[in-house]
Amino acid sequence: MAEQPSIGVVGATGAVGTVTLDLLRARGYENVRIFASARSAGKQLGEWTIEEATPDALSRGDVDVFLFSVGTSASRELVPHAVRGGAVAVDKSSAYRLEPGIPLVVPEVNGGRALEHDGILANPNCCAIPLTVALKPLHDAAGLVRVRVATYQSVSGAGAQAMERLRNEPQDEHDLRMDWSFDGVEFEEEEKLRLETQKIMELPDLPIQATCVRVPVMVGHAEAIWIETEDDLSPDRARELLAGAPSVRVEDFPSPGKAKGIDEVLVGRVRRDPTVEHGLALFLASDNLRKGAALNAIQIAELVLQRERAAA
Amino acid sequence: MAEQPSIGVVGATGAVGTVTLDLLRARGYENVRIFASARSAGKQLGEWTIEEATPDALSRGDVDVFLFSVGTSASRELVPHAVRGGAVAVDKSSAYRLEPGIPLVVPEVNGGRALEHDGILANPNCCAIPLTVALKPLHDAAGLVRVRVATYQSVSGAGAQAMERLRNEPQDEHDLRMDWSFDGVEFEEEEKLRLETQKIMELPDLPIQATCVRVPVMVGHAEAIWIETEDDLSPDRARELLAGAPSVRVEDFPSPGKAKGIDEVLVGRVRRDPTVEHGLALFLASDNLRKGAALNAIQIAELVLQRERAAA
Repeated sequence: MAEQPSIGVVGATGAVGTVTLDLLRARGYENVRIFASARSAGKQLGEWTIEEATPDALSRGDVDVFLFSVGTSASRELVPHAVRGGAVAVDKSSAYRLEPGIPLVVPEVNGGRALEHDGILANPNCCAIPLTVALKPLHDAAGLVRVRVATYQSVSGAGAQAMERLRNEPQDEHDLRMDWSFDGVEFEEEEKLRLETQKIMELPDLPIQATCVRVPVMVGHAEAIWIETEDDLSPDRARELLAGAPSVRVEDFPSPGKAKGIDEVLVGRVRRDPTVEHGLALFLASDNLRKGAALNAIQIAELVLQRERAAA
Repeated sequence: MAEQPSIGVVGATGAVGTVTLDLLRARGYENVRIFASARSAGKQLGEWTIEEATPDALSRGDVDVFLFSVGTSASRELVPHAVRGGAVAVDKSSAYRLEPGIPLVVPEVNGGRALEHDGILANPNCCAIPLTVALKPLHDAAGLVRVRVATYQSVSGAGAQAMERLRNEPQDEHDLRMDWSFDGVEFEEEEKLRLETQKIMELPDLPIQATCVRVPVMVGHAEAIWIETEDDLSPDRARELLAGAPSVRVEDFPSPGKAKGIDEVLVGRVRRDPTVEHGLALFLASDNLRKGAALNAIQIAELVLQRERAAA
């Protein structure tokens, strides 16, 4: 690949950063620069040496696309420098997701929006991505009326330290946790899932409620979903639509273990919700570090790079 | 206690049997006989010696109430012998739960039914018990229209062997599981939760759907619940009703870890379901070995014994 774009990975040492590097390697990207905090600078991650993620380093104009997987406040601080230097920034934090004018993209759902960027593109929440991938074909066919979701989120969604804590926790002490900030009614995570789903689906008034729960599973998020639709949608037809949808694999009993390490969102247990006229229940599982984060961000970057190459 | 009733515990070595013995000790019962399979007969469990659970041993008429925590087929075989000998049998398996005429009892919800028994009383499913304890005061106030539940069930619900497996499983291999038999649409567990809730609440037509999931937690089941009611019910009023309901403790963020080892069902996260007019979302956690099994069965036995003592 002679004309390889230059990709910068900021936050390369975290749980998502590590998977980002694996995916970039597997996709054959060689022109990769990796950045992290001063503490890690100079260390080697495989074939790459970590550079310090300073405003200067990010604004030099020698990187085409930056993939940011750092915390929200670090993103707020650093992303503008990358853009100032002329790069496109795909940000995985929640810093920019709901900003008007900034595309919040799941390529299979609203990929066209990726082309409307002004330097920054936001990668959605790790539960919103698989949810919208599964809901999109059902909405297109029957019109979503309301959505309820109960999540089973793995600890890797809380980062590498949370994974280490689970690794060291005796099995008898495992518990469900709700480790998100709380406004008195909703967890921040539930608000994100609601508002981001509405933005990605371009259904700002879609009634949706989530109950978010962290489970003692290392990798892979699952969601128990109830939807109601305008038109009738049989479970058989829904399974057919899902089987034909991009990035979906229909699977009888999705689980994080089955979803771990694969690109598709597993969707199954599709059945009628007998409590309402046009209701369906379903269950999904997805690798939160891949499609829920690193993979989706790379797919956004590739959409943008393709378009720029086509325009050149 | 001079006039102590004689209590027989059948299946004393299992996960629920062990908790049953702890609870009987804590309540001061001394006239206890314990039974298990031939393999365990003769062994000592604390101060008690295990007897073999044969038809003969159970039908001798020297036990007032038997608490059965054995599998469904063992219950079908042995319970009739206990009743033939004149004892009352409280059965924790699913063998008799849906049989017409056999009371399926949660004392706080339909305790009056305990007095209509004909020798056998059934103890409900470990998710149906806390669910009905939480739903009862809300139904009485506002009338349930429909119920949806996503469960987070601990492995102790699958028995002592499942607990041992989790104890030996590396944390990286933990997964969500769905270890119930499946009829093509529902897990048997989901059907139980639906039909038993309808029977206990005496609402045979209540629309209810469950999605059941096993999580890698040792003890304590949790449930994410959505209800719709006939009349409006504010979250504040619902919390007030729950706080006043028997065996409920209102807790901001219920979890299995908080529920483990206590008698009450923890109910919290009570908020409006904004997707419908009269909807609420809530979350509960309960010790599936105590209120979900052993404790509820003892409470049923005590209801029956009280009444018999009062009648004597």
